Amino acid sequence: MQNQGLLKELIQCLCCLPGVGPKSAQRMAFHLLQRNRDGASRLSRVLAQAMLDIGHCRECRTFTEAGLCEICSDSGRDASLLCVVESPADAWTIEQATTYKGRYFVLHGRLSPLDGVGPDQLGISRLEQHMLEGRISEMILATNSTVEGQATAHFLGEIAAKFNIRATRIAYGIPMGGELEFIDRNTLSHAFNGRTEF
Amino acid sequence: MQNQGLLKELIQCLCCLPGVGPKSAQRMAFHLLQRNRDGASRLSRVLAQAMLDIGHCRECRTFTEAGLCEICSDSGRDASLLCVVESPADAWTIEQATTYKGRYFVLHGRLSPLDGVGPDQLGISRLEQHMLEGRISEMILATNSTVEGQATAHFLGEIAAKFNIRATRIAYGIPMGGELEFIDRNTLSHAFNGRTEF
Repeated sequence: MQNQGLLKELIQCLCCLPGVGPKSAQRMAFHLLQRNRDGASRLSRVLAQAMLDIGHCRECRTFTEAGLCEICSDSGRDASLLCVVESPADAWTIEQATTYKGRYFVLHGRLSPLDGVGPDQLGISRLEQHMLEGRISEMILATNSTVEGQATAHFLGEIAAKFNIRATRIAYGIPMGGELEFIDRNTLSHAFNGRTEF
Repeated sequence: MQNQGLLKELIQCLCCLPGVGPKSAQRMAFHLLQRNRDGASRLSRVLAQAMLDIGHCRECRTFTEAGLCEICSDSGRDASLLCVVESPADAWTIEQATTYKGRYFVLHGRLSPLDGVGPDQLGISRLEQHMLEGRISEMILATNSTVEGQATAHFLGEIAAKFNIRATRIAYGIPMGGELEFIDRNTLSHAFNGRTEF
């Protein structure tokens, strides 16, 4: 069993999944072979098709197999609101958690000069085109609250100012249900300084 | 983004992997689309081929794409020793950890009447054929130390007795480096009762 070509290769390939090491990959391979060959064949087909067909929406850059995603092609959504997020997953999460009915713009990353990620990689020129068109009245900055996410929000805020567009940032503070005693110092200090009228 | 057909389907399909729920599946799908389309396409190809080509070795029932696995076709291995394991993964683990040079027999499960797993599902008739051939001098029972694994070992031991073949069970006790204080009661009691001459 030192050199079972195909099985070894399958285990290696499964390691390309995030969070899957050699041990879990082995478990997955044996599980599929033993109990779910149909599911595995279906996964193989859909995976191949997805990699071929899924591209970026030409308006908001999210993943879609159509040229224009569901949200951008929905005329019922408010085109004057644009929510900028780091990833398609962030947009999904906002869709599920809120009643937001505007549009999105997906950066697919955050400014990170050390990793070679600058405005070009984030599609900022496409974003500026949207702003030029003059429909956007508010740009909601929903990048993460990491250092790089904050820097990206700051950068986008300056561009919005250039186009005279109102930029807002989603609120950061104590999570709902969170107890002060167990909140990290940074968040608490941020929440304290950012207090609002009651 | 409520109805992105292909992406939703990919996420669903990824959930067929053991230990992968909707949240990790979503993360995997986005990761592959964003950063590793080549790896994903390769995974898709190898997965399809593996499900088609990989079957069971006709001698030991482990997974192999050939009719006869590497170990069974290796004439340098000692055909008089037969180690019975529950899964191909167990055989791999023994191969990596020990210097065992005999052969294996893979049950692909353990006796579990409630789940409908009896001798037929475990290939016991094939195992009996091996014993009939008269080459086997020792059968090493390496099923797990669970209740079902123990019951399976007991069952196999009785068959071996019928064929006048010596059956041995791998040793269970305190793991190497384990401290008595932190060992569960059941293992300690087993190790104590199973003490050997020093």
